[in-house]
Amino acid sequence: MKIKNPRTGQYYYEIFPPTFEELKDKTNFMRESQEVWKELGIEHRIKALQAWKEVVNEHKEELIDALCMDTGRKWETILEVDLVASSIERWSNISRDFFSIIERKTSSIPFLEIEQGYEPYSLVGVISPWNFPLLLSLIDTIPALLAGCAVIVKPSEITPRFIEVLQKTINHIPDLLGILNYVEGGGETGADLCKLTDIVCFTGSTETGKKVYQAACDNFIPIFLELGGKDAVIVTETADIERATSAILWGSVANAGQSCLSIERIYVHRNVYHQFLSRLVGKANLLQLAYPTMDSGQIGPIISEKQVAIIDNQLDDAFKKGAVLKAGSKKCEELDGGFYCKATILTNVTHDMKLMNEETFGPILPVMIYNTTEQAIDFANNTQYGLSGAVFADTEEEAMKIARKLKCGAVSINDAALTAVMHEGEKNSFKMSGIGGTRMGPSALKRFMKQKAYLINSQKVNDPWWFG
Amino acid sequence: MKIKNPRTGQYYYEIFPPTFEELKDKTNFMRESQEVWKELGIEHRIKALQAWKEVVNEHKEELIDALCMDTGRKWETILEVDLVASSIERWSNISRDFFSIIERKTSSIPFLEIEQGYEPYSLVGVISPWNFPLLLSLIDTIPALLAGCAVIVKPSEITPRFIEVLQKTINHIPDLLGILNYVEGGGETGADLCKLTDIVCFTGSTETGKKVYQAACDNFIPIFLELGGKDAVIVTETADIERATSAILWGSVANAGQSCLSIERIYVHRNVYHQFLSRLVGKANLLQLAYPTMDSGQIGPIISEKQVAIIDNQLDDAFKKGAVLKAGSKKCEELDGGFYCKATILTNVTHDMKLMNEETFGPILPVMIYNTTEQAIDFANNTQYGLSGAVFADTEEEAMKIARKLKCGAVSINDAALTAVMHEGEKNSFKMSGIGGTRMGPSALKRFMKQKAYLINSQKVNDPWWFG
Repeated sequence: MKIKNPRTGQYYYEIFPPTFEELKDKTNFMRESQEVWKELGIEHRIKALQAWKEVVNEHKEELIDALCMDTGRKWETILEVDLVASSIERWSNISRDFFSIIERKTSSIPFLEIEQGYEPYSLVGVISPWNFPLLLSLIDTIPALLAGCAVIVKPSEITPRFIEVLQKTINHIPDLLGILNYVEGGGETGADLCKLTDIVCFTGSTETGKKVYQAACDNFIPIFLELGGKDAVIVTETADIERATSAILWGSVANAGQSCLSIERIYVHRNVYHQFLSRLVGKANLLQLAYPTMDSGQIGPIISEKQVAIIDNQLDDAFKKGAVLKAGSKKCEELDGGFYCKATILTNVTHDMKLMNEETFGPILPVMIYNTTEQAIDFANNTQYGLSGAVFADTEEEAMKIARKLKCGAVSINDAALTAVMHEGEKNSFKMSGIGGTRMGPSALKRFMKQKAYLINSQKVNDPWWFG
Repeated sequence: MKIKNPRTGQYYYEIFPPTFEELKDKTNFMRESQEVWKELGIEHRIKALQAWKEVVNEHKEELIDALCMDTGRKWETILEVDLVASSIERWSNISRDFFSIIERKTSSIPFLEIEQGYEPYSLVGVISPWNFPLLLSLIDTIPALLAGCAVIVKPSEITPRFIEVLQKTINHIPDLLGILNYVEGGGETGADLCKLTDIVCFTGSTETGKKVYQAACDNFIPIFLELGGKDAVIVTETADIERATSAILWGSVANAGQSCLSIERIYVHRNVYHQFLSRLVGKANLLQLAYPTMDSGQIGPIISEKQVAIIDNQLDDAFKKGAVLKAGSKKCEELDGGFYCKATILTNVTHDMKLMNEETFGPILPVMIYNTTEQAIDFANNTQYGLSGAVFADTEEEAMKIARKLKCGAVSINDAALTAVMHEGEKNSFKMSGIGGTRMGPSALKRFMKQKAYLINSQKVNDPWWFG
């Protein structure tokens, strides 16, 4: 399987997906190893992950190099690698707290007591996407490992260069042998994983997510799907326009918009529309493409060629239907074989444009006027997706009133895309944006354990509900 | 659709399933009503359910009569009706506690705070079975209503007579208009429900559960499945045999074994086997069929004719393979058109018998000897199911050591089938016994709400992670 470089469009990497039989042997071994891992206890598992953290840190430069080649970008990559350590720290603390509590309680019936138990799933499958190859391969993996599961991860075949480096760091930790494995492969390997694991966490497109749901259904296992988004922001007439434009630009353009929680629709109150637009255009025009070098600017290449076609198609459709370009360009530009897209602002957009309905995954900011709060809420909710959203208003109270009516899992208040930096809030994905329990906040840990209740009769004589 | 009476085998009731269009109109109306119900707040919803409880109580005799005709049994029916009130009480308290806490916390980043929100699913579909027609139609319905959802319930077409009476009680409560509806119908209506609701709770066979999972997958909605079981009990050589035999007999024979958490496999240590068997047979022989009248004994009819065939087939298979009858009878007996099965004890059973692998759903007690604790645990775990189990030993500590190794969601300690009377423990169904979050304990309420995180930036100046 040959892999392209997003900055050159050239094939110069190859991956060798395992056969089903190879994968089966691997997962069988992992299931056996997990029996030991589970019994080691939480403190031992935390120590193993801390040791791994150190080794990852020692290989930081190598990992960054591989990820830079995978994605063609730099500052987001450094951020990704830096987040490994804090993620291990955070989940270690959550897990320690969780396992320190033995819940024992009396019931409403005399002599009957309950002890709450937890049994980790044996083998978790993680199928992760190309937009944040490292970060999103770990977001479910770390809590699953701490819960006591073994985890097999298949990152996207579009960004596989970091796998070898990361697997090398894992191999340094004897405790993780057979417990954590990264495998190379495409859709077929992903489908195989769904047949060989006890639970699957998938992050990616809604289209593929539906296939993964079907695979889980066929294998009769539970699933967690984190899929597409079409996040909206509402800017009221009382909003701080300086603040709103800076945050929204960041929320739309970071990682060249290649983020599920990227702002993709902007609704602005009529009274502040011109002021908002002029500041947004001014700030957008200051941003540069990260070309010719990765340090040349803020906006890296579009990583997947398939995505370039989607963005161009959506832009083309929008201009045909009357959209007006205020900043950026009419389509992605090819530079030395890589594809780039400037921070692109459109007005005169309507809800019959693909750009306002389908996930774009690019640094495109369509701006639309609204007249009443009710209208803004209707606009924001009029989508098949429900990942997250944002509201800007003078006071938190005013913003929260609107936020409570938004049909999505997380709303940033006077900021944009805060889910990227705050991991404590528990959220579900609404509508077509996903299925399954929260992947953030303390409850996310429990996804990887079956709850088990010990129901204890401590009475020494016969009980009244038995037959006489 | 014509319905049989389980005591006579005669058709004398008819149900009229709604068309898809009728069901669609109904669910559309329910979705509108739910918008109001959700906003009423928890205290108002509790009051509405308390009012309903009173009306159910006023119609108690009528409800018991209908359920007795549905199931052909009496004492279990009275228990079912009595449990409505306590279930509403319990869930009211849990819900009040839940909604009284507004979770607001600071994050690890200065100026960023989180408020945890919850959004009820609009419309919950409940598809419930015939073995406890009232109880199992309400087990998910009551928490879902309190969470703020509308609920549409389709009980089994085998036991539909109580629906009309219950719907009459619902119609007395104006607040529940369009919020709670019971509909008649078979598999086709169940399939329609999966297309029209936002989440489905199904209780029934693993076979049908797989179909429901597929329907949920097609509609891209989450699901909770509570399916079959093949619960095992382990009786160690230190166990109190009087206590164990009484409890196990109850756990196997109550409701004529027509319970998912019925004990269906009994593993007894070699040293106490003869003593155990002799006491179990002695007690089993004291039990009577509830024939000719419902008050004649403890064991009512087998409710579903399809189940009669399954039980007879399993018994036949067991005897052909060498099982020995110690109490009860070689097959179900037909009495005045109804089918009954005595408390039936078999020895010389082996793990290649259907009786030891497939769900029986009858008052059949196969008893098998074990030699070591490891062997007993292997025997108990050697099944495709993982609903619950039980352990009897001298001390709780001894029993818990074994219980921790059982691969199932709830283990009764020195008692049997305690899940039937204790609702506080949180449990998942393992393996083919189900998919999805716990239906018992406080967490079960959260199944009916999407979690929503409000991520609040209370800072008054620009933040460092935005573009400059």
